[in-house]
Amino acid sequence: MNIGIIGTGGVARAIGAKAASLGHTVILGTRNVEETRKRTQGDGMGNPSFAEWHRSHPAIALGTFAEAAAFGELIVNAASGTGSIPALRAAGEANLKGKVLIDISNPLDFSNGFPPSLSIANTDSLGETIQRTFPGVRVVKTLNTLSNPLMVDPSLVNGGDHTIFVSGNDAPAKAAVIELLTSFGWKDGSIIDLGDITTARGTEQLLPLWVRLFGKFQTPMFQFKIVR
Amino acid sequence: MNIGIIGTGGVARAIGAKAASLGHTVILGTRNVEETRKRTQGDGMGNPSFAEWHRSHPAIALGTFAEAAAFGELIVNAASGTGSIPALRAAGEANLKGKVLIDISNPLDFSNGFPPSLSIANTDSLGETIQRTFPGVRVVKTLNTLSNPLMVDPSLVNGGDHTIFVSGNDAPAKAAVIELLTSFGWKDGSIIDLGDITTARGTEQLLPLWVRLFGKFQTPMFQFKIVR
Repeated sequence: MNIGIIGTGGVARAIGAKAASLGHTVILGTRNVEETRKRTQGDGMGNPSFAEWHRSHPAIALGTFAEAAAFGELIVNAASGTGSIPALRAAGEANLKGKVLIDISNPLDFSNGFPPSLSIANTDSLGETIQRTFPGVRVVKTLNTLSNPLMVDPSLVNGGDHTIFVSGNDAPAKAAVIELLTSFGWKDGSIIDLGDITTARGTEQLLPLWVRLFGKFQTPMFQFKIVR
Repeated sequence: MNIGIIGTGGVARAIGAKAASLGHTVILGTRNVEETRKRTQGDGMGNPSFAEWHRSHPAIALGTFAEAAAFGELIVNAASGTGSIPALRAAGEANLKGKVLIDISNPLDFSNGFPPSLSIANTDSLGETIQRTFPGVRVVKTLNTLSNPLMVDPSLVNGGDHTIFVSGNDAPAKAAVIELLTSFGWKDGSIIDLGDITTARGTEQLLPLWVRLFGKFQTPMFQFKIVR
């Protein structure tokens, strides 16, 4: 499958590399291709520069947001919370229309430092905002409640025995995403379909607890598990 | 120990009955004692009238908010989210001062039906609001992320293997609360001290996910577990 990923940061690279390793063809989309290629510094969150990362992932293409969106049969939003709507607008509604869009982003607001607050919360969510802004896109919110390495290799924590949530209005879109998650290593009993896209409020509002646990554990290698 | 509980609903009854069974002396506090005694209807959430419940728990006293607060060496806030500050004001700052107050309440706003939103969220929490309103009280937020029966009998789900969070500014107060939690059946490895009272934002914002899981499972008998 052709997968277009909006973003070039840690989440985009993790999803892109995993999808490519599974035989998918992947383009990462960025605002300014030349600028992204020329960057020599890491992002300050432990990720190397794009160029450095790209040397070990030469099969993954880099393009504009619009090129990634046009190419992808499936789209992944891995932009920052505040950058998501501008990036998707730049990607172009016509390039996104009718496609499944996996939204992994969280509306984290670091303007007052750490811990971040949420720029959208409580009675709305970023997932809903994207769905409302692009009504022709089949938004599925998932993978936004855990660290990049775990997204594509759940076995790294507790033998893979923990929970991933899925929210979205379109049942076939959710089924397609669950199939992709399964190919990433997510087991059937680990995936909880919460319901429509408004349930993204619940998973995005997990982040304030997540960031505190991250601060306490000093590692992002932990996960939420729902037990019954 | 003498325990004063603010509230007479499901949470107050669960904590009160458990504490009494462990040998503590318990008063539940209410706005109007006679009105609470005379009520013949349940609360619509599966709890019987207070009088009916009280017949099987005769050792637990009923008093005003102020009487419960004055009597308790340890105070438990089990009022509703919107009712907490008014109830604690009625309890009286002088009756609360210097005491450990376990805050179990969540700022759920049902004014637009189900699912509720939060009346305080994101950059503030009910736990912080109580601490700020009563600076002389040693607020410890805990037990607000799960259903009443599980609060006092964690073994009812997954053999007790799941997580309870503790937030508060006062380390000895948290230690006292953790001792009480341990007497309720919480195991050492299940209790996570998140840090100061601002971490209550994280646990209160778990509720939007909790209510959706409750809706999905059609039972409140589930829990969050942090795995590493």
